[in-house]
This record gives sequence, structure tokens and C-alpha cells, in this order.
Amino acid sequence: MSRLVLKFGGTSVADVARIKIAAARVKREVDAGHQAIVVVSAMAGTTNQLVAWCNETAALHDQREYDAVVASGEQITSGLMAIALQSLGVKARSWMGWQIPVMTDAAHGKARIREIRRDAMEASLAAGEVAVVPGFQGRTEDGRITTLGRGGSDTSAVALAAAFEAERCDIFTDVDGVFTTDPRIVSKARKLDRITYEEMLELASQGSKVLQTRSVEIAMNHRVRVQVLSSFNDQPGTLVVDEDEIVEKQVVSGIAYSRDEAKITVMGVADRPGVAAAIFGPLAEANINVDMIVQNVAHDGRETDMTFTVGRAELDHAVRVLENALHKGFEAATIAHDSSVVKISVIGVGMRSHPGVALTMFRTLAEKGINIQVISTSEIKVAVLIDEEYLELALRALHTAYGLDAG
Amino acid sequence: MSRLVLKFGGTSVADVARIKIAAARVKREVDAGHQAIVVVSAMAGTTNQLVAWCNETAALHDQREYDAVVASGEQITSGLMAIALQSLGVKARSWMGWQIPVMTDAAHGKARIREIRRDAMEASLAAGEVAVVPGFQGRTEDGRITTLGRGGSDTSAVALAAAFEAERCDIFTDVDGVFTTDPRIVSKARKLDRITYEEMLELASQGSKVLQTRSVEIAMNHRVRVQVLSSFNDQPGTLVVDEDEIVEKQVVSGIAYSRDEAKITVMGVADRPGVAAAIFGPLAEANINVDMIVQNVAHDGRETDMTFTVGRAELDHAVRVLENALHKGFEAATIAHDSSVVKISVIGVGMRSHPGVALTMFRTLAEKGINIQVISTSEIKVAVLIDEEYLELALRALHTAYGLDAG
Repeated sequence: MSRLVLKFGGTSVADVARIKIAAARVKREVDAGHQAIVVVSAMAGTTNQLVAWCNETAALHDQREYDAVVASGEQITSGLMAIALQSLGVKARSWMGWQIPVMTDAAHGKARIREIRRDAMEASLAAGEVAVVPGFQGRTEDGRITTLGRGGSDTSAVALAAAFEAERCDIFTDVDGVFTTDPRIVSKARKLDRITYEEMLELASQGSKVLQTRSVEIAMNHRVRVQVLSSFNDQPGTLVVDEDEIVEKQVVSGIAYSRDEAKITVMGVADRPGVAAAIFGPLAEANINVDMIVQNVAHDGRETDMTFTVGRAELDHAVRVLENALHKGFEAATIAHDSSVVKISVIGVGMRSHPGVALTMFRTLAEKGINIQVISTSEIKVAVLIDEEYLELALRALHTAYGLDAG
Repeated sequence: MSRLVLKFGGTSVADVARIKIAAARVKREVDAGHQAIVVVSAMAGTTNQLVAWCNETAALHDQREYDAVVASGEQITSGLMAIALQSLGVKARSWMGWQIPVMTDAAHGKARIREIRRDAMEASLAAGEVAVVPGFQGRTEDGRITTLGRGGSDTSAVALAAAFEAERCDIFTDVDGVFTTDPRIVSKARKLDRITYEEMLELASQGSKVLQTRSVEIAMNHRVRVQVLSSFNDQPGTLVVDEDEIVEKQVVSGIAYSRDEAKITVMGVADRPGVAAAIFGPLAEANINVDMIVQNVAHDGRETDMTFTVGRAELDHAVRVLENALHKGFEAATIAHDSSVVKISVIGVGMRSHPGVALTMFRTLAEKGINIQVISTSEIKVAVLIDEEYLELALRALHTAYGLDAG
């Protein structure tokens, strides 16, 4: 008898009718002889409502209380899912994060799982009960409720699959799997049958919303086989697996994009050691993630420009932090910023053995008259920042250029 | 420094704006030097939605899962209230039922509090924090979430006031206090300044929705001073206190009514010992509460009728149970039932020393041509069952007859 984790996202448990459909899906696996751990998100829209209430109560609010409020969304779904399973004759019970318990650190709002204590739930599974777990939840050592951050239910599912040594973790969503790129923009996008952890990680962190980055990291570290599939049909989805399991590697597997980008340029800073630290130190202290970075050559041997990107929502905060830092150190510098940019990332493990992937990208964009503002690369990724007006044009051109078009 | 429990019902925390108003009310008590335990209900409408979802998922559902679902309503409010207090500069934190913990029995859906463990919350109060507690919640010895049944937040509030030895338990609601009768029906109804525990208990159990019966029992047993007042104005409410604290006792303090009644008559049962047990035994086993009971004199010395009332929602169930019992024992008997009845109860501790209260009731109703179907009395109560068509007429006539009219 093998063990599966089945995770249903918000649209797959959007209302009672959908919860019943999801429960029937679980029943099929139980009838096939599997032990099942079911992880559920909040019903679609619920988390947004709860977050809005917190913000409405106070713009700056205690993250511990925020966690208590928003964790209730998943709690509701878990009870309803247990009821739905029972009504189909499937033995089931809900397990809140604090009941299992899923122990996390105390970084409320974006906690990280430290340990999942197996004993109680293991006994329940052994007794033939389906365990229904609200995703996204944990508790601290001193007994406060934590949440794992947006998309945290994926993380819960993969972490439970790792802790309970599940054969596979099925992530049910409203799309058919992982696509070569966003099919809403590129009609010729294709569903991938398999993708490597590394590629999935890049896709997730570069803007693909299919899986949360942290969940892919855990899957990769613990070699959890993850399947992304639709709860709206019975088609197989995309399997996220070890590179060994993929025989025919593509040079480029997918193209991700992110609109959540803003560009900041600090002009006229002295070109001397320590200047980067003087800029990025204050940003790091303010908990602002900096992504792409380029430093121009000094204009006159003494001054230089520094350009980098931050999350669009953090732009105002970042600019304020930098203006403070300027006050204290770089009187000559000025700050420019632009939030009408997007990042496009071309991803594939095959890049390692195929040079020229970046060149194809630059050439393709140049042919369409698209200016590249910033470039960053990793072993299996080339990412560029461009004017957001060109997003769709660029995506379609690159999808064709890398031979990803369907049919 | 004294300690207060402040409980806010659903309409008093109906939305974020109301939660902020309630928080400001708490702040006034804190600024006046009180320690405060704040107990909150779910935002108005939330519990109904959660219950509806459970019923929609499965008509018959696991009460343990029901509890997990519906307890989330209060959880949400408690987090928002803590945030609202903090935003006013008041130190506060939420305490879920399982965190305090409030230990209950395992009667899910209508659990009873066994013990409130004080240590952790006591330390927090001593550190100057307001404790915000979701009402209605507890946990079992083996760690499942329980709820105390409808209106259970009142019970939570009074039980916390008893456990933490609060000076007073303020129950904030959308009415100004306890009235002589329902002011929506009787425009001359008056707010009572004080009422005894015994009277409040009868009022609550006879249909007044102001306080939950169980909460009044606990208040009476632990001599918790309870104030019922409005969160929509700053007027003093009604104080529920010991009889000793009320100098001028009224013969009749209030008139309650309940539409939640249904009458069952079992006709043609043998008039022999054990027949009552044969009827009420199966009902008790089916967990159906029977309220008023009358047995007619035997028609011919051998057969009799038995009339009694049950909650209207339980009528169908009760009739089924009785039909089964009939099959097994009373072939001759037939069952009639009527759910178009209401119970009116006249209540007052002064009755003990003033005979004639019942007579006034019978005479008043007779003058209005209202037929009394069943009568029951206690030391401080006379209750009658009448056709529901006459409810308003009867209430107004009795209110005048007992000298309760305002002005």
C-alpha cells in the first residue's frame, strides 16, 4: 500500500460543489488502495477577504494576529473536506497545523517549517483514516498559530509528502499542468509532461504561479515526486522529477515572465570599494529583496550608475530607504525609478551543454526592436528586463525562436 | 486594580468598523485602570454561513468537523479585535480556546466547559495585556476543537469571568438591556435596571434571546455579576445580580415567549403505571427535550391522552420516534401534532410571596378570548401554550395586566 498527498488549491475547493468533486477524486485513490493525506487551501477568495479585513483594521498589524485570522480560511475547508469524504463513506478527519503539529519558526506571516511530528497522524493513517490537513498553517514552539506565506499550501503539501514518505504529491489546480509559457498570452504554449526540479524552481521563482518556490525547493531537497494537474478534468498533469528521469532534455523547457518588477537606478555614485554595500546594505536591513543588478562602467573614472530591480510593491519603500541612505553618504547621487518593466526568463537544464541560448534571446528581441534594459543569467536561465509594453510580443517571438510552439 | 470581562456579540463586531468601536470601548476600561478579558462572537452572519456550508456538504455530518469549521468564525474576530486594540495603543493578544486552554467534554457541537487553565493567560494579563478570546470555543482532552452550542460565547464570557474572578462580566449586544418583554411587539416594554439570576434564567430558558441559559446558570452558580448592555450607545444596561441586591422586588419582572414550540398529543393510551415512561423513555433516548406535559383524566377509566411540547425543529424526529414506540406497544394510540403554538411565560421572584399571579394570567387571556392549551408552573414562573395567532394580543394584554407598561 502506498501513500499519496493530494493537495487542492483555492479554485479546486472554491465552493461546496467543488469540495465534493475533490472528495470524489480522493475516494478514487483510497478505493485504489492508497493511504491519503489531503491538503486543502482556503476556498477561493476567502484569504483575500481575511487579509483585507486585517488591513482595514490596521494598515500595520501584528503578524501573529494576522496569522490567527488568515489561518481560519484553510481550517474551514479542512472541516468541510472531512465531512465530504465521510459522506462518501471514506473515513477521514481534519488535522489543524497545531494538532499534527507542524512546528515552524516564529517568522509569522512567512514562517518556515522546522519539523512535522508524525506520531499522532501516523496512527490515524494506519487506522485507515484519510488525514485532511489545512495547508499554510503551523505553530510555534510557544503555541502561536503561524502561516507559511502566500501559496504556502503547496509547501505544506510537499513537506507532508516528505515527512510521511509519500510516493507522490499531487497538486490539483485549475490549469492542466506546467506549460512552456503562459497559454493566455501564447496560444501555441504546450503542456510539459515532465520537468526537472531545477527548471521548476527557476520557473516558480521567475514568475510562474503554478507552484510556490519554497515548495519546489523542499521537493528537490527531499526528492518528492510532484505532479501538477487539473481538478477540472482527468488528464495527467506535469510531473516534476529528478533530471535522471527525463531522457530527452530540451535546451529550453519554458519561458516565464513577471510583472512584479520595478527598476531603480542610482546615478552618480562614487566608483569606489564599498559603494555597493552602502546601497544594498540599507535595502537588506529593510527586508527588501533585490533581484537583477548591473553596475555601469564609470563615466569619468570616478562616478558610476547602479541599476537593479525590486518587487513592484516594494518600490516606494525601497526609494525611501535609499533617499535616507543618500542623505547620509552620497550627496551627489540621484535616484530614478521605473515600474513599467517586466522580466522574461528563458529556462532549461539543456542550456548547460548548449551555448548560444542567450544569443538567440538577444537576437530575437533585437529583431522585434525590443530594448533589453538589464540582463541576468544563471546556469539554466537567461533573464532580461524589458519595457512591459513588449511583453506579449517578446513572449511569442521567443516561444517560436526556441522551437516550443505546439503542432 | 479590578478585572472585567467584556463580551461583544455578533452585531457588535459585525464588520471592521464595529470592531474598532468595540475596541475603543475596551480601551476606555483599560485607561480607567482595569485588566480586561475581551470575548468576541463571530461577525454577524458568519456562523450561519459556516453552518450552511456544513449542511450543504452533508446533512448528517461529523460534529467534530462541524466544530472545526464553525469555530473559525470567532477565531477571525479575535485576531481582528487584537489588531484593533493594538492600533489604539492597547497591548493585546488573542487566545484561542485550545491555547488557553478551555477544556471541555467531548460533546461536540454543544460541549460543556470542564476547566479553564489559568496560568498562561494569567501571566499575560499580569503583564498588562488585554486577552482577546474567541467565544464559543474549547478543546477536548485529546486535542480536538469543540464548540459550546449556539450562543455559547455568552457562556465562554461568564465562565472566564468566574475562572479569572472578574468583578463584572459585560455582555455587549444590540439591545439596551433586558426588557419586561419584547419591545418589538409591546411598545410599552421597559428596560429593567436589575434582574435576579433566577428570573434571568427563566427568561432565557423561556425564549428570551438576550442571554444563553447556560451562561446564566454559570453566573448564578459562581455569583458572577453580569451586565447586559448595548454597544451602540453609552447607556447603562441591565445588571443580573443576586436577589439580595434588589430591594424592591416586582411580583412579575418580565414576560417571555417562545415560537420554538410544537405540541404533540398521544391519544388513547392505556391509563396504567409505566405509560409515561414508555412514551418519554424513547424520546429521552433520542435526545429530544420534552418541556410542558399534561395528562388528561382517563375518558372511561382505561384510556387517557398525553400532551406535551418539544422544540419545533425536533417535531418530525419526535413523531417518528413515537410512531416506532407505538408499533412496539400501544397499538390503540394515535398521534396528533401542532406546530402553530407559542409559549408565553410570566416570570418574577415576587410570585413566591404573591399568590394570584396565575389567576391574573388566566383571567386576562380569557377576557381576550384566548384558549389556553397547556399550563406549566414553577416557583417563579407561569407558562401557557396558546395558538400562535394570539401571541401579540396576549403579550400586550398581560404586560398591561401585570402593571409593566412604561410611563
